[in-house]
Amino acid sequence: MKKLILALTFISVSFLSGESIKSPSGALTLKFFMTPSGQPGYSLTHGEQPVTGKSVLGVLFNDGPGFHTGLKLISADTSTHYEEWNPVWGEVKTIVNHYRELRVKLEQTKDKPAYCFITFRVFDDGIGFRYEFPVQDNLQYFTVKDELTTFNLSGNHKAFWIPGDFDSNEYPYKTTRLSDIDASGGSDFFEISTKSIVGKNVVQTPLMLKTEEGLYINIFEAALKDYPAMNVSVNKDNYELRAVLVPDAVGNKAYLQTPCSTPWRTIIVSDKAEEILSSKLILNLNEPSIIKETDWIKPQKYIGIWWEMHVGKASWNYSDVRNVKLAGFDWSKVQPNGKHGATTERTKYYIDFAAKHGFAGVLVEGWNVGWEDWFGNWKEDVFDFVTPYPDFNVKGLSEYAKAKGVKLIMHHETSASATNYERWIDSAFRFMNYYGYDAVKTGYVGRIIPRGEHHDGQWMVRHYVRVAEKAAAHKIMLNAHEPVRPTGLHRTYPNWLACEAARGNEFNAWSRGNPPEHETILPFTRLMGGPMDYTPGIFQIKMDYYTPGSKFQVHTTLAKQLALYITMYSPLQMAADIPENYDRFPDAFQFIKDVAVDWDDTKILAAEPGDYIVIARKTKGKDEWFIGAITDENSREITVDLSFLGKGAPYNAEIYKDGEDASWDDNPMSYKVEKAVYKTGDKITFRMAKGGGAAVRFSR
Amino acid sequence: MKKLILALTFISVSFLSGESIKSPSGALTLKFFMTPSGQPGYSLTHGEQPVTGKSVLGVLFNDGPGFHTGLKLISADTSTHYEEWNPVWGEVKTIVNHYRELRVKLEQTKDKPAYCFITFRVFDDGIGFRYEFPVQDNLQYFTVKDELTTFNLSGNHKAFWIPGDFDSNEYPYKTTRLSDIDASGGSDFFEISTKSIVGKNVVQTPLMLKTEEGLYINIFEAALKDYPAMNVSVNKDNYELRAVLVPDAVGNKAYLQTPCSTPWRTIIVSDKAEEILSSKLILNLNEPSIIKETDWIKPQKYIGIWWEMHVGKASWNYSDVRNVKLAGFDWSKVQPNGKHGATTERTKYYIDFAAKHGFAGVLVEGWNVGWEDWFGNWKEDVFDFVTPYPDFNVKGLSEYAKAKGVKLIMHHETSASATNYERWIDSAFRFMNYYGYDAVKTGYVGRIIPRGEHHDGQWMVRHYVRVAEKAAAHKIMLNAHEPVRPTGLHRTYPNWLACEAARGNEFNAWSRGNPPEHETILPFTRLMGGPMDYTPGIFQIKMDYYTPGSKFQVHTTLAKQLALYITMYSPLQMAADIPENYDRFPDAFQFIKDVAVDWDDTKILAAEPGDYIVIARKTKGKDEWFIGAITDENSREITVDLSFLGKGAPYNAEIYKDGEDASWDDNPMSYKVEKAVYKTGDKITFRMAKGGGAAVRFSR
Repeated sequence: MKKLILALTFISVSFLSGESIKSPSGALTLKFFMTPSGQPGYSLTHGEQPVTGKSVLGVLFNDGPGFHTGLKLISADTSTHYEEWNPVWGEVKTIVNHYRELRVKLEQTKDKPAYCFITFRVFDDGIGFRYEFPVQDNLQYFTVKDELTTFNLSGNHKAFWIPGDFDSNEYPYKTTRLSDIDASGGSDFFEISTKSIVGKNVVQTPLMLKTEEGLYINIFEAALKDYPAMNVSVNKDNYELRAVLVPDAVGNKAYLQTPCSTPWRTIIVSDKAEEILSSKLILNLNEPSIIKETDWIKPQKYIGIWWEMHVGKASWNYSDVRNVKLAGFDWSKVQPNGKHGATTERTKYYIDFAAKHGFAGVLVEGWNVGWEDWFGNWKEDVFDFVTPYPDFNVKGLSEYAKAKGVKLIMHHETSASATNYERWIDSAFRFMNYYGYDAVKTGYVGRIIPRGEHHDGQWMVRHYVRVAEKAAAHKIMLNAHEPVRPTGLHRTYPNWLACEAARGNEFNAWSRGNPPEHETILPFTRLMGGPMDYTPGIFQIKMDYYTPGSKFQVHTTLAKQLALYITMYSPLQMAADIPENYDRFPDAFQFIKDVAVDWDDTKILAAEPGDYIVIARKTKGKDEWFIGAITDENSREITVDLSFLGKGAPYNAEIYKDGEDASWDDNPMSYKVEKAVYKTGDKITFRMAKGGGAAVRFSR
Repeated sequence: MKKLILALTFISVSFLSGESIKSPSGALTLKFFMTPSGQPGYSLTHGEQPVTGKSVLGVLFNDGPGFHTGLKLISADTSTHYEEWNPVWGEVKTIVNHYRELRVKLEQTKDKPAYCFITFRVFDDGIGFRYEFPVQDNLQYFTVKDELTTFNLSGNHKAFWIPGDFDSNEYPYKTTRLSDIDASGGSDFFEISTKSIVGKNVVQTPLMLKTEEGLYINIFEAALKDYPAMNVSVNKDNYELRAVLVPDAVGNKAYLQTPCSTPWRTIIVSDKAEEILSSKLILNLNEPSIIKETDWIKPQKYIGIWWEMHVGKASWNYSDVRNVKLAGFDWSKVQPNGKHGATTERTKYYIDFAAKHGFAGVLVEGWNVGWEDWFGNWKEDVFDFVTPYPDFNVKGLSEYAKAKGVKLIMHHETSASATNYERWIDSAFRFMNYYGYDAVKTGYVGRIIPRGEHHDGQWMVRHYVRVAEKAAAHKIMLNAHEPVRPTGLHRTYPNWLACEAARGNEFNAWSRGNPPEHETILPFTRLMGGPMDYTPGIFQIKMDYYTPGSKFQVHTTLAKQLALYITMYSPLQMAADIPENYDRFPDAFQFIKDVAVDWDDTKILAAEPGDYIVIARKTKGKDEWFIGAITDENSREITVDLSFLGKGAPYNAEIYKDGEDASWDDNPMSYKVEKAVYKTGDKITFRMAKGGGAAVRFSR
């Protein structure tokens, strides 16, 4: 996280209203204004095209006039910033942070005079803005009743959306015009157990949009650390979006203390879909790493005792008793159900497999007591995070793993009982340190405790950050499942390798699953905020393999599962299928063994949300490239230019592609592995089956 | 806590309905019945007098039919229990637990068959009953929507009440007929900052009642550990009381898991007010101590840096900055306000004073950072419990105290941010162990976090118990301020020496205070559940001594302040005034130095709620008796018989009494100390001024 170059050029210009600033290249123009009633606002244009028309801003307080009308513009200062910085891990080695900033000072004179700033940062690929509340005499503590931020869109754009929800983001995406959004939910979302759908016209961010004119717009937020997450309501008359914050148990939105800021509200915009995916705007709006020594943070691939539970071969729970009180429960008196996944024996098998095939980590879910009645009871004392089931020898296994050069990955399912987790977390992390675990997967399935709070409200947002900070203090890497959607905080907490926070591959095992287009949308939405632990690599596509008659299946071809290791960026990638299935397809498995997880460079070669994505990435510190190409439910042929390959000798390419008769529904496991030779400037064509994909490794 | 005698005699009798059982002596008769609609109920008579008429029972669930109507009586078993047990500390050395029990099994057949028990225990001085939910196939987890328990009173009794409230019990008592209760609050309760008054007809328990016929009835609960506290609503048409449970953040009452029970609902009844005060029914309904070794638990007197803040001589806060964020705050850069109470120097002065006069502990409030903006902001990260202010040398003081044979008493004000306290509590208790603190005073001033929860709801009830359990694990004694009202849990957790949980002496320092009758009501209400840290011993009665023109004052005479050490039972008694005031009145102070805090025996010599109380207590393990006598706003003469004194040689009595010209308002600090000689069977007459009292030490 060393800054290569830090160059700040301040050009302060005071102006009063109606002034505009342009992005460094001039591609974007932001205009700030004050309404006659004293409300601030902005508009944004991309070249000549409007991105947002006049859009008003403001924050309403519970305990004072807040900042929304009757404001006086005191000053407006502009400056230009340029820096390059190196993330601890990432898609590229060096990130350029280049923007022009407009910082306006607004005074509230209704009550005791108080002031705030709105800071706009205008990059060439979008903007971020936030409300800032400095320390001042008349503003120390305040409660946000509502945020009045709007995004006044220019038309009835195509939208890639999921319903606004205070608790879940595990929905499949819908693609409709803004006017056709119906996010009221209903049976269409039955498989999501814990949800709090906001209403018909409210959708989540990141919200991906495409205009009639072909402009791509992404609306989201950055650096959500101490505030609720933002949904947006859609006014179908004028296509104005308005912030809808997640409330707390008593209906308030946020409790703030000066100095403080809201998260950045972001608009990423380009006429090229590829540039949306390559944007580093959200990362740039986050703070640098708080972790000084980062050598213990290791991007990695892992396997785990996990998919076998999803497909019904094994259980998280050790027994089938239905009523467990952890304190004093005598597990030796319980009849095991014979299906428990996390046994010592099975874990050793996974450790052996990881050691043989070069996986750094082995996740074991269901190792700890409490799974018998962990879900659905709004139970507070549900797990203790330190007591293994009788058939899981944590000491023996930690020694066995160490001897094999493999790390066990801890699992802390909280059942959304965050109060309970906070009580145990110090013990749990000490336990991990003691037994040599250096990574944890957390889970928040269920209704939140403190009761009345939501997964995406301020209290839980602070909880997730608190867990990341505590993990960092214990040198533990973090992978959070069912948290709030990430907003680039992995810049600040690089030990926070990944999150789930969207509909992962697991839904394919036991529900109608994820439609073939799902993975072509996620990078434009959920992944804008950070890596996703999507858990790709399922080779056994259809679930009738396990359960005769089952109609459940993964909605991709096998080859597309490989491509996801490239198209779904994460420094933490699971080989999610059970080892036995990898043994059945060793040639395809070779790609998972070979693929890198940390990169010097990334090229978005082709992309259209909902249709296809082709991405090339260069392995960190190595003359090696990978390409992943995926399509939606349509078969597709895409040709891309390989001019990014290094000059000189050609590269040997190992190509993993759909069989000619492959399709996600009829013949998903048909694939071919071919070798070929390519050099820089060559073109390569991917013929992808319906729901298919391709993956290539270039090396020399 | 060794049981002297344990004798259980089971006499099982099955009967179907309409049967009655009598208390061991036959004084009370409980009748159980089922209504035609299948709802259970009971009635209670004292001799020939009705205590409650037909009173229906039941529990409503959110997630099932619950147990209220359509129930089938399956069985009814009676048994008799007799035991004697010794509390770790208490008002008497040995407690007799003698009751007859009726346990009815009720089946709910509406849904999947489920059953519960209602267990009645009938003592000679009252009854307890509770709902019990054993482990069973069709009942594991359930949510209590409401409890339908009623107490159908026989008439328009006189009631000593405070408003039903989910957050505060710091009200002065009102004495009215049931029909005249108006608990809607309003400006009458302005000085209570955090309150959630339930409504006009809802009052708190313990509710003390007196019938026209002179029967004393006390309605309360015992063993409140995992359930919300009970208020009662008063039906003014028929004088039926009905349980009103404190809701959680989403309006539910309790989350339970079988096996579980509600707290005991208690009715203590006698035609002698004295017998209400001597009842051990609530303690007997609690579970025995969970603490095996109890030698570290020490009833004690203490002084503290505390009253000087209440009277405005000093401040809890070190500085007058208004906006503190603990993490990273640089206290060395802050200007002290010059009034900080908890300085090293002042604490040494208190340690010296304690050592000189034989006090075991010195409480220091305001020692830790965060008091600048601790209240009123619903702030979560308000204290860390381990960081002293720069002018409080915790290491030096802990060594100084140890050298002087005195213990510092820790103070953990949480500002009602229970989540924050739970995060810090392990560190805070380790800090205490490290620096030799063995007692903590906790505080819960303000609105609860988790927001939406209440002081008296299930979540907080569990929190207080969790703190007591954790304290026990660290061998720490606990004194909780602003918790839920106690219900005899000090039997189970004898390290939980005392609670505030009512309107303490402090209100006299800065509000209209506590009326002279206040201390004659508290033993009949709040103290029924356990010791109160009332903080008696204020010698400087009027506050204009500190603040010229102040109208605030303690509403007693000085002599009555001494009597409170006897009439307000607690194993933890503060000498609450500042040492300088004790130096002014060394002869009166001698009583505080002499008075015991643990007792072999207690005699309630005379009592009438709202009017007067005279109690004699025998020092544990010593041939020494004390008497405390107090009156309300009326001067009063009471003569009591000293037949409890030991036979043989007479006792030397040191008598502390009101001066002849004393009265709480005009001349409260007029007192006399006299010596006399009394022997068993003598009579002693106390002439008490308005708001006055008397205290005597008998020794030989």
